[in-house]
Amino acid sequence: MSKKQPLIPAFDEKVDLRDYDPDYTGKFSSEDEAEHDRKRDLEKLHKLQETFYAEQKHSLLIIFQATDTGGKDGAIEHVFRGVNPAGVVVTSFKKPSEEELAHDYLWRVHPHTPRRGMISVFNRSHYEDVLVVRVHDLVPKKVWKKRFDQINDFERMLYENGTTILKFYLHISKGEQKRRLESRRDDPEKQWKFNVGDLEERKYWDQYQEAYEDVLTKCNFEHAPWHIVPANNKWYRDYVIAKTIGDTIDAMDCKYPKPTEDIASIVIPD
Amino acid sequence: MSKKQPLIPAFDEKVDLRDYDPDYTGKFSSEDEAEHDRKRDLEKLHKLQETFYAEQKHSLLIIFQATDTGGKDGAIEHVFRGVNPAGVVVTSFKKPSEEELAHDYLWRVHPHTPRRGMISVFNRSHYEDVLVVRVHDLVPKKVWKKRFDQINDFERMLYENGTTILKFYLHISKGEQKRRLESRRDDPEKQWKFNVGDLEERKYWDQYQEAYEDVLTKCNFEHAPWHIVPANNKWYRDYVIAKTIGDTIDAMDCKYPKPTEDIASIVIPD
Repeated sequence: MSKKQPLIPAFDEKVDLRDYDPDYTGKFSSEDEAEHDRKRDLEKLHKLQETFYAEQKHSLLIIFQATDTGGKDGAIEHVFRGVNPAGVVVTSFKKPSEEELAHDYLWRVHPHTPRRGMISVFNRSHYEDVLVVRVHDLVPKKVWKKRFDQINDFERMLYENGTTILKFYLHISKGEQKRRLESRRDDPEKQWKFNVGDLEERKYWDQYQEAYEDVLTKCNFEHAPWHIVPANNKWYRDYVIAKTIGDTIDAMDCKYPKPTEDIASIVIPD
Repeated sequence: MSKKQPLIPAFDEKVDLRDYDPDYTGKFSSEDEAEHDRKRDLEKLHKLQETFYAEQKHSLLIIFQATDTGGKDGAIEHVFRGVNPAGVVVTSFKKPSEEELAHDYLWRVHPHTPRRGMISVFNRSHYEDVLVVRVHDLVPKKVWKKRFDQINDFERMLYENGTTILKFYLHISKGEQKRRLESRRDDPEKQWKFNVGDLEERKYWDQYQEAYEDVLTKCNFEHAPWHIVPANNKWYRDYVIAKTIGDTIDAMDCKYPKPTEDIASIVIPD
């Protein structure tokens, strides 16, 4: 593995996930060493979100994808607890309902995109329709093949209408998934998360990796970049995500809105 | 003012808000003195919410109402930041849209009630339809008069189908509202919240107090109690709310769900 690895693949790169080390921890060699930066960047994010929310000018869509046990729930919990809950909406896309399946696959997604001033967090997303759908042949190949372009069109439309998009793929190794499944099996506080179906899915590990490589190759643009987050170490995963979101909001240079009229001289009556 | 005052009015009491001291701070004489309990109760709430969320058995609806500057936004921010954001949805009910006005007043509210495992927080609610609507004669008296019973029916239906309901009225004095409006006028980080319309509303202070007294008298039940929160002191307000919610979830005695089958012997393959 290389000593340094990009967070975002080059936009013309054919992604091979074996080039990305899920154990990578950047400049840190331990959790303790990263603690100071992680805390600082989380606090920075929480502070920046206040002006972002007040300004109501930008909207931010953050998509999380990963294989089972990849850490989507944990990352969302750790990064966004501390943010004003009035400014964040988390949507978990589960197995589609009969009603949702009777529509195109973007139908259930679109209503959850963020309004101005808001952060929408997707726990899974429309990408499942080229991932689980592909691996399990839920629709014919000629149908899902067209979806890469459709998703790119959809995300570009959102971007062109004022939505900033960040996409995080949480990259863990097959060995780490094994350890996490064992932990869910054995820890009474985690057993409720143990899903026997995850063992079935684990058999398709290689097919999922391949499907993800297509997603990361075909749907990666400057206006909607994929971040391949080394996620074997939860602390590094959370640090990278918090820093990335913080830097993104920072670049928006949000300001508290100015009063529309001269309010300084207004007297508040008793 | 009495040395001690109830948080919940007696269920047969005709509420007179002048009996409730907005400066009341219970057993604490200063913010510093309350700091230890406030922190402990917030942490307890955050911890309890984890099993509540995992169990997916109960749902919790929390309604915030107050006059302008009463502290709804601040209370929601301080009490719920720290809770797993995947388990909380905050809905702010603003001036109804044309589409919403073309339906009954509960139509826009109902879709935001909580699913099992979730906490729904309402920043304003269907109570506005017997508050602002009443004070400004937006519908005839014979229409809004019937709404107390309708609201009671609606909330009882929610309760009988598994939703726990907590309602918080944040009680501030007219003098405190003046100080807060002045602070919004003068503080550059708060000016974006200054709404000239709030000055207009302030003229109706007495009418609003009277409308609130009716709400607190007519819609107060053991299964959906109103809490009159002394809210001149923000720290006491937040302490009372966090403690009340924590105690409510604590009484549910939530448990992590047990695995549906014997998982202990399952071997995770490489």
